[in-house]
Amino acid sequence: MTSPFSSASGPLVAIGGAEDRTSELEILNKVFDLAPAGNQEVAVIATASSIPDQVLPDYDAAFSRLGASRVHSLGIRDRQEAADADTVRLIEQSGVIFITGGDQLRLTNVLGGSPVLNAIRQRLQDGAVVAGTSAGAAAMPGTMIYNGASADALRKGAVNMTFGLGLVDGLVIDSHFLERGRFTRLMEIGASNPEHLGVGISEDAGVIIHPHGILEAIGPGHVILIDSRDLASSNITDLSMGEPVAIENMILHAMVSGHGFDVEARRYLVPHELGAILTESR
Amino acid sequence: MTSPFSSASGPLVAIGGAEDRTSELEILNKVFDLAPAGNQEVAVIATASSIPDQVLPDYDAAFSRLGASRVHSLGIRDRQEAADADTVRLIEQSGVIFITGGDQLRLTNVLGGSPVLNAIRQRLQDGAVVAGTSAGAAAMPGTMIYNGASADALRKGAVNMTFGLGLVDGLVIDSHFLERGRFTRLMEIGASNPEHLGVGISEDAGVIIHPHGILEAIGPGHVILIDSRDLASSNITDLSMGEPVAIENMILHAMVSGHGFDVEARRYLVPHELGAILTESR
Repeated sequence: MTSPFSSASGPLVAIGGAEDRTSELEILNKVFDLAPAGNQEVAVIATASSIPDQVLPDYDAAFSRLGASRVHSLGIRDRQEAADADTVRLIEQSGVIFITGGDQLRLTNVLGGSPVLNAIRQRLQDGAVVAGTSAGAAAMPGTMIYNGASADALRKGAVNMTFGLGLVDGLVIDSHFLERGRFTRLMEIGASNPEHLGVGISEDAGVIIHPHGILEAIGPGHVILIDSRDLASSNITDLSMGEPVAIENMILHAMVSGHGFDVEARRYLVPHELGAILTESR
Repeated sequence: MTSPFSSASGPLVAIGGAEDRTSELEILNKVFDLAPAGNQEVAVIATASSIPDQVLPDYDAAFSRLGASRVHSLGIRDRQEAADADTVRLIEQSGVIFITGGDQLRLTNVLGGSPVLNAIRQRLQDGAVVAGTSAGAAAMPGTMIYNGASADALRKGAVNMTFGLGLVDGLVIDSHFLERGRFTRLMEIGASNPEHLGVGISEDAGVIIHPHGILEAIGPGHVILIDSRDLASSNITDLSMGEPVAIENMILHAMVSGHGFDVEARRYLVPHELGAILTESR
């Protein structure tokens, strides 16, 4: 397998939901700063949302305040709209592509295999920043969570997964993480296959996924990592559906703004280590 | 420091709350089975509860169904009652001492330094089983949690702790663990001092703390362990109160019924390993 991080040259930003859109704009400001030089156009995609008419004006106002030259508010409600040539063109000319929250299954159901999704992937490869919050973050990996008990998801089959948008591999993303106590969802996934890093993002926190798999936490909240690669044992294969999963040995990290993680090396990066790596790769 | 587990010869049973008291009685049955041979008297202490008149009859019925020769329902509402000679005598003659849920601060405030607590400690040393659920479990260690934000306790100072009942050392116990998403409480404590094992017990789950620090999970739910001893770094000393805590490297386990853990060796025990150790120590 080649590195899952080598193909994209733009950064991804996954946000845990409920990011500040009206006062400090700390996270949205970071997103906007990552736009390629000379391109300050923003496309906001509200496909996941059931209330796009309420969500889109908020982001229009926020990105305009940050200095966007234009903000394209894209509802993209169905697969016809996901194939619309004018919509594709607006994405192709944007330096920031932002995917709102809502229901990640709506996002994949509408965008999966569409010209709009192909355009997003191409923009990412060409150096644009692709950011998503809540459902828009959860849907980023090749495989995503779309449902799962919150109280105790550490039961065989309690987490429902399907193909995601395929913007990044090697990890699984969960949002609203601390607020909804979602540790067990990533633990169950880690027991089912220990290869993929679990990334749990709390509200008003985000993680920049730099090329080459360097994660950088941003915002006032936490980014929790659950690393199952050294899983020593689990009973999961012996269980019937619904029975409680045992886990021996997962590793837990909590990142705050300025801290980082090297996904392939499975190495935590304190601020000066992260800084050195990011400077080097520039 | 001598082993924190060597002094007591009776087992402790910490239960995560909401254990079944009316149908299968799986956990209460395990508790009752641990009573020393020939002593089937049970003392139930409802000091933590604000509704002892509702709670005590439930346990009376449950332990009677399990075969208790007598069940002593002890409200123990204040420090006068915690010094009452008749109450102390009932505890001294019981093979099972059960501490109900409620508010653990009420438990320590009323029982701390009292003749009743001294009698409980003595009974434990003499081989009786001491069990507690919810607040009655959380209060068992030398230091206990009595309050703390649930959504994001991973902020400096978010968890409030004080002296517990001192029935066990070397660990900290949290109850209703998965139901209330309490991972961050044990993570903050582990960052503040990595020595003590975090034990998070979910509802209708329990953990038997055998002499010599062998844990055994019981019941249909999960027992989560957060082991901070290999903590590699944290920013906690540099933070102001309320700021988010970073954590590099804690270890996470999820035990289900029949699985165990050696606290001093920090070793997970799958069922056949636990069985061998428990047989050996008999």
